Amino acid sequence: MNVLVPRLAVVGVGLIGGSLALGLKAAGAVGEVVGIGRGRANLERALELGVIDRISDRVEDGVADADLVFLATPVQTLPAIAAAALPHMKSGAILTDGGSVKGSVVKAIEPLVPAGVHFVPGHPIAGTEKSGAEAAFATLYRNRRCILTPTARTDRGALELVRQVWRCVGSEVVVMDVQKHDRILGAISHLPHMVAYSLVNAVGSYDRYEENILEYSAGGFRDFTRIASSDPTMWRDIALTNREALLEMMELFERFFAELKEDVRRGDAERLFEFFLRSKQSRDAIL
Amino acid sequence: MNVLVPRLAVVGVGLIGGSLALGLKAAGAVGEVVGIGRGRANLERALELGVIDRISDRVEDGVADADLVFLATPVQTLPAIAAAALPHMKSGAILTDGGSVKGSVVKAIEPLVPAGVHFVPGHPIAGTEKSGAEAAFATLYRNRRCILTPTARTDRGALELVRQVWRCVGSEVVVMDVQKHDRILGAISHLPHMVAYSLVNAVGSYDRYEENILEYSAGGFRDFTRIASSDPTMWRDIALTNREALLEMMELFERFFAELKEDVRRGDAERLFEFFLRSKQSRDAIL
Repeated sequence: MNVLVPRLAVVGVGLIGGSLALGLKAAGAVGEVVGIGRGRANLERALELGVIDRISDRVEDGVADADLVFLATPVQTLPAIAAAALPHMKSGAILTDGGSVKGSVVKAIEPLVPAGVHFVPGHPIAGTEKSGAEAAFATLYRNRRCILTPTARTDRGALELVRQVWRCVGSEVVVMDVQKHDRILGAISHLPHMVAYSLVNAVGSYDRYEENILEYSAGGFRDFTRIASSDPTMWRDIALTNREALLEMMELFERFFAELKEDVRRGDAERLFEFFLRSKQSRDAIL
Repeated sequence: MNVLVPRLAVVGVGLIGGSLALGLKAAGAVGEVVGIGRGRANLERALELGVIDRISDRVEDGVADADLVFLATPVQTLPAIAAAALPHMKSGAILTDGGSVKGSVVKAIEPLVPAGVHFVPGHPIAGTEKSGAEAAFATLYRNRRCILTPTARTDRGALELVRQVWRCVGSEVVVMDVQKHDRILGAISHLPHMVAYSLVNAVGSYDRYEENILEYSAGGFRDFTRIASSDPTMWRDIALTNREALLEMMELFERFFAELKEDVRRGDAERLFEFFLRSKQSRDAIL
């Protein structure tokens, strides 16, 4: 039998890493899955659940015989893990990742890649609010987009294999350059988080009254601000690593918000209506 | 039998007006319900569904024998409808409303209230995305807050009756002054809408690439911007009528967003983490 990935090493067997392993297993596209990570209890649970077939305690050992190494740890940790893994990977092996920022990751990792080993930067756009091996499931990536961001140095055969891996678990693969990825994610994901965090802090700080006015928030506010409950460490790292694109988007947002504020200040009924209508139409088009 | 409201007139028999009628009926707290409104088909459907017992074609006639008149039409229309209704209401009758802005409504309506008739401004904080008599249901207000905003002129007996009416349909009634209401709603409802509308317009306008980057938006962005699909006319009217409180909140938000942007610009890991953590903690406290 000629499986797509004879041996897969997953560093970080959580929702993202575990679900790729399970998806490939469900498709019969992987031989053995080696799980690597800091949390021993999580790895043992992953083994028990059949997410992985074997635990490796050290990155250096775990990646040694792998055909594909998938880094699914927080974005800030990727360069250090890649630095540990790359010198021990076999010739022809491919390193890929699931980091939600690509520019800084590629910049840090690409110079470390030895001859004969390939690096294909990636970002599956999927996730739930849960984490850990327990949360992983085989269909997480079905009908989701996965963005791959090859550079001039990326091997075309390696890119093709990683593309097949993601297709195999049901994703629509989109290839684009690193900067475009970071700008698009800055706009549709990172900016909304900055907005939600700011909104909750602004409303929570309002101190004209003795009480916390967040107490009055109804369903709409709660739904709207749900993403402000996201992990602060993860979002600190994203803000630090996608700084440039994020700043561009924050400034774009500020201009629109200031325009709307000016319309409110002037009580310009026509422009207010037009602003809200345009937004509604854009929003309804992506429903 | 001594019902709480022998005759109720509802102007605007949609989700808000119809659900109050149904809730009071379910509680056996109302005698007859007269429905008044511009949409004949909607009123006939309301009659068919048992939301109302009788249709009145003109506000002047419909309110004549009512003990309680509930105005449940868009906030901009309230002053004109009140002006039509008030001179025809009987002595001792009470006018109340469900407008989501209170300052401008009270300012416009209070001077029109004749001696012997009472006005109790109110705002039930409830709603779904549906509208029309078809959408009304008896339990809409159960476990929701209803804010009443009496003024120095408000009759205490009338306030008490309106309080009982909302309690009767399951609401927790909170009494506060008009300005506080408008500030709180400005913060927890009106500001988030301005933010969501601006976000969608900003992202939708991003034109570095040939394609519309909104196409890449995943579940998170869609959920976050759902409120940007709200009715532009309604939100234009809210922005116009709650201008002052809304501007205060928009400026408060801008300060927090600018602070965050500065932290991103400087790459200040510690402050970014603290900002996100504080927001997450506030948000989780209202879950």
